[in-house]
Amino acid sequence: MTLQQRQFVDQLLRNAPFDLGGDLAVQRPLLEGLLTEQPLPSDVLTSSDELGGVPVARATIDGVEPRGVLFHIHGGGFALGSAAGSLGLASDLARRTGMSVVSVEYRLAPEHPFPAGLDDVNAAYRALLRSTDLPVVVSGESAGGNLAVELLVAVRTAGVTMPRAAVLMSPMTDLTAGGASFASKSELDPNITAQAIHNRVGDYLDGTGTAPTDPRVSPAFADLRGLPPLLIQAGSHEVLLDDATALAVKAAADDVAVTLDITPGVAHVFQAFAAILGEGDAALDRVARFVEEQLSARNEPAEQPVAVAG
Amino acid sequence: MTLQQRQFVDQLLRNAPFDLGGDLAVQRPLLEGLLTEQPLPSDVLTSSDELGGVPVARATIDGVEPRGVLFHIHGGGFALGSAAGSLGLASDLARRTGMSVVSVEYRLAPEHPFPAGLDDVNAAYRALLRSTDLPVVVSGESAGGNLAVELLVAVRTAGVTMPRAAVLMSPMTDLTAGGASFASKSELDPNITAQAIHNRVGDYLDGTGTAPTDPRVSPAFADLRGLPPLLIQAGSHEVLLDDATALAVKAAADDVAVTLDITPGVAHVFQAFAAILGEGDAALDRVARFVEEQLSARNEPAEQPVAVAG
Repeated sequence: MTLQQRQFVDQLLRNAPFDLGGDLAVQRPLLEGLLTEQPLPSDVLTSSDELGGVPVARATIDGVEPRGVLFHIHGGGFALGSAAGSLGLASDLARRTGMSVVSVEYRLAPEHPFPAGLDDVNAAYRALLRSTDLPVVVSGESAGGNLAVELLVAVRTAGVTMPRAAVLMSPMTDLTAGGASFASKSELDPNITAQAIHNRVGDYLDGTGTAPTDPRVSPAFADLRGLPPLLIQAGSHEVLLDDATALAVKAAADDVAVTLDITPGVAHVFQAFAAILGEGDAALDRVARFVEEQLSARNEPAEQPVAVAG
Repeated sequence: MTLQQRQFVDQLLRNAPFDLGGDLAVQRPLLEGLLTEQPLPSDVLTSSDELGGVPVARATIDGVEPRGVLFHIHGGGFALGSAAGSLGLASDLARRTGMSVVSVEYRLAPEHPFPAGLDDVNAAYRALLRSTDLPVVVSGESAGGNLAVELLVAVRTAGVTMPRAAVLMSPMTDLTAGGASFASKSELDPNITAQAIHNRVGDYLDGTGTAPTDPRVSPAFADLRGLPPLLIQAGSHEVLLDDATALAVKAAADDVAVTLDITPGVAHVFQAFAAILGEGDAALDRVARFVEEQLSARNEPAEQPVAVAG
């Protein structure tokens, strides 16, 4: 946790050729290369599978009997990224929580706009529930954090079994990009811009007739009542900071157990740099403690309201 | 953590004769009686002292060598409550964190309006720093949470040594009572009303020429840059919920390490009911983990900004 580490990662991101808002034909392989540049630790055992007709990447830690399954939804603006590419971060979480990982290869925009990706996430989640008795925790980064919350909302509405908790890293929650942080953090954010978000939201919603204010694509505007405990992490050097805080505020208003956990001076999905950034390492440790607390909790379902007198 | 416990506490609060907004001559002894009804555990050793000319109540746990000092600021709308009356909650925190407690007997409104109480908190804090080499953590409940943040802002501005962290339970942060939760949670909140807040804010500001929007009395409007890590806890059944979320949002925008921790279905300063309310017990355990993390952190000062390119 040093200023030097934060500055190093900040410069790394400023100098990286990757542009979330750029041409997908260029950016998709570029991101994939960045995500898979470092080989996974040799004790991370990966495999390909499918759940509910949706391809998934699985990972377990050699020698660890999983105490639960982390259902992970990768980031990439609904239009980039991959299940396998997300296993660096997801398997780190698996290691710290003693769980196995299922990462969903949901269909990407613009080839497959809303609701294709969310449909895939839903189908894979329901198939996972049928295939395991272990507790399930949902996690998502960036656009994957959006899909994670929308999954919970859909599952709540359909009466399907909830996961025990959800972990949301720098979630995109307001596709209007309406947060004040898009202006106030534009200089501090090393690699995400309002334009990039607009481009990717365009891909996701283009031709669907769905407005960015629609609660099915912007969970900050959704009815979150009955959702399981949420941990929302973000960095203070993000134009997407207000996406994280807005979700927390809405969840609190909707009587959800929610923890908003802001790390100052770091960027979008800074947890991915845990190996070289103490703040990322500490944030993932807090995720592990949160998951531990949720798996051991004697909580009644969050949706049971206290009776209101009068 | 049962629905029955939450309902019991909810009814307890609805039926209690205490009214935060009521006549102070009646309500002050009533609150004092409620707070001291249960004797402190026999291993809580209390004493009276003064720091910087300000009376304080001290508490230690018999046989525990304190690893730090909790500088506690009691609640009561700036106009009620006492240092001794707050020791039930504060000594519970001391026990869980392995610290000793200093609880400040700051002057109360309307006899002593703003800035008298804050001046006392400042004077006692500075005297505490001079008297100990142990790490200091600041805690505050309700109006005490307001004074806690204002203390940090004053200390930051004056260049005095910061505490290692601050723990804010249901803090009052916006004295305009501008939060939407004053309407949306009015039925769910068992014992706090907008009228009560208005009455007590009136006492605090009356004759001072200070507006409730003044950042010196409403920390949600203050510049929070450079503050140490904050843990903000609140219940979702509070009209003051938005006071908690607004402070978290402002702290995040101001690059402060902040954790907002919302427990659904519980009321204002629900941690005071930890003995009979699982949610309160769990919340205090999270305070202890937060304090543990802060005392062991290798954090650099939060105020060191990452250099911004361009």
